[in-house]
Amino acid sequence: MRTHRRTIQVAWGDCDGAEIVYYPNYFNWFDGSTHALLRNLGLGMDAIRRRYGVIGTPLVDARASFGVASAYGDVLDCEAAIVEWGRSSFKVHHRLLKAGMLAVEGWETRVWAAQDPSRPGGIRAVPIPTEVVRLFEGEG
Amino acid sequence: MRTHRRTIQVAWGDCDGAEIVYYPNYFNWFDGSTHALLRNLGLGMDAIRRRYGVIGTPLVDARASFGVASAYGDVLDCEAAIVEWGRSSFKVHHRLLKAGMLAVEGWETRVWAAQDPSRPGGIRAVPIPTEVVRLFEGEG
Amino acid sequence: MRTHRRTIQVAWGDCDGAEIVYYPNYFNWFDGSTHALLRNLGLGMDAIRRRYGVIGTPLVDARASFGVASAYGDVLDCEAAIVEWGRSSFKVHHRLLKAGMLAVEGWETRVWAAQDPSRPGGIRAVPIPTEVVRLFEGEG
Amino acid sequence: MRTHRRTIQVAWGDCDGAEIVYYPNYFNWFDGSTHALLRNLGLGMDAIRRRYGVIGTPLVDARASFGVASAYGDVLDCEAAIVEWGRSSFKVHHRLLKAGMLAVEGWETRVWAAQDPSRPGGIRAVPIPTEVVRLFEGEG
Repeated sequence: MRTHRRTIQVAWGDCDGAEIVYYPNYFNWFDGSTHALLRNLGLGMDAIRRRYGVIGTPLVDARASFGVASAYGDVLDCEAAIVEWGRSSFKVHHRLLKAGMLAVEGWETRVWAAQDPSRPGGIRAVPIPTEVVRLFEGEG
Repeated sequence: MRTHRRTIQVAWGDCDGAEIVYYPNYFNWFDGSTHALLRNLGLGMDAIRRRYGVIGTPLVDARASFGVASAYGDVLDCEAAIVEWGRSSFKVHHRLLKAGMLAVEGWETRVWAAQDPSRPGGIRAVPIPTEVVRLFEGEG
Repeated sequence: MRTHRRTIQVAWGDCDGAEIVYYPNYFNWFDGSTHALLRNLGLGMDAIRRRYGVIGTPLVDARASFGVASAYGDVLDCEAAIVEWGRSSFKVHHRLLKAGMLAVEGWETRVWAAQDPSRPGGIRAVPIPTEVVRLFEGEG
Repeated sequence: MRTHRRTIQVAWGDCDGAEIVYYPNYFNWFDGSTHALLRNLGLGMDAIRRRYGVIGTPLVDARASFGVASAYGDVLDCEAAIVEWGRSSFKVHHRLLKAGMLAVEGWETRVWAAQDPSRPGGIRAVPIPTEVVRLFEGEG
């Protein structure tokens, strides 16, 4: 299982008036990690659109569980890994650690999506190519 | 049950390169609706901090289920209501409708939180005053 | 001169730890007002891309002058108007009033931009059609 | 003159439907760099509030000049330095370089601000301590 790791330092602008991280920012970080995880395996947005004709990997479900609040200057180690593959969807598991302790945990369920020719502006899930899933096998 | 209703029009800046709403923005809208719901009953942040000594209502869990993508200019009717009360936590249910159809559904579990005197910078859940829960009873 | 007017109520999530609006949000509001100003005259992003082959109206310069800080719950009356037309650029003037008093003033210089065929991924300014400028004449 | 340097990689969520950076994000990066510049010299928000009784360094003016658009995955070298000191204000100059070329330039004018005892919720500029200015002298 490939795991993407990066470190984020909480900025002043990431926090709200209670001086803790404004929670939608955690989902912004989840999204950034997922894109980096894909990109590092050659699956950047440009690549998947060009190669597979998809428009991206929009979400069908997102969730976060908050254990420890973080504040300006805190350093968060972010881990992201795909933990489940469906026919046209996949689930990403996110872990944010502060000083080695799990602070926030998250899950994103995303679909491999293409334009829906039957509805203008509509999108629909399409099967994920086997070669894409294979890229995530092995160590990482 | 008190329900807060407001209408949002998706801005250009709310969307990403796939020209659909960048998903963390939905949580930003959930948060805005929850604060408005509380504020409309006299429970704005200033009021609850002054009156009850809490620092706010931080999240322990947030989730969204995305059914229909929305794009620049789309009008979303947002509904928020507290659907569950615990001793020191409560659950907010969010529904975003596009042209009358459920597009996004969300849930936030929040705690009534105060500074934790035993840990500098720490916060802890405290019991929600009965009078607060009572404000949400009746029609709305 | 057409002026776009809208009212914004500062959300909890718009503020930082000093409990005043986190300043990049003002530019987000400027952008939203400019898009609404254009859209209301039939110049939404879809329309200008389809009709004129441009990719949008990216910025070459943005500025804000902050007079009065605003906090959670404050109501801001936002005005936006195009005050200057160049061959391929235009300047938008923004005024945010709090209780009738000028709180923030802003200026955006934007270009009418198309893909640059000579550089992959590049964009270049192109002349603004006369009919576009004419839409902004008259009262509004 | 102390210069703060950091590298940012443009995230998918930083871009809008034209697939270039949504411009308010540049100001978010400016703010982050300014805070890091101060913090690295021992002037983090906690420190200046505790030591000098200020509420922070809110802006009176912010400006950006955009030369080259950036897209998802682009790497930006960000530089920030204080280029001017007033009695109670200072000016930060920001430069964002892409592949060594100046892509975006910015200026923030900030004040050293304290609560204004004469107006509830009001803030006012106060003189910057000499020792603060001295920290920025010398090489860096």
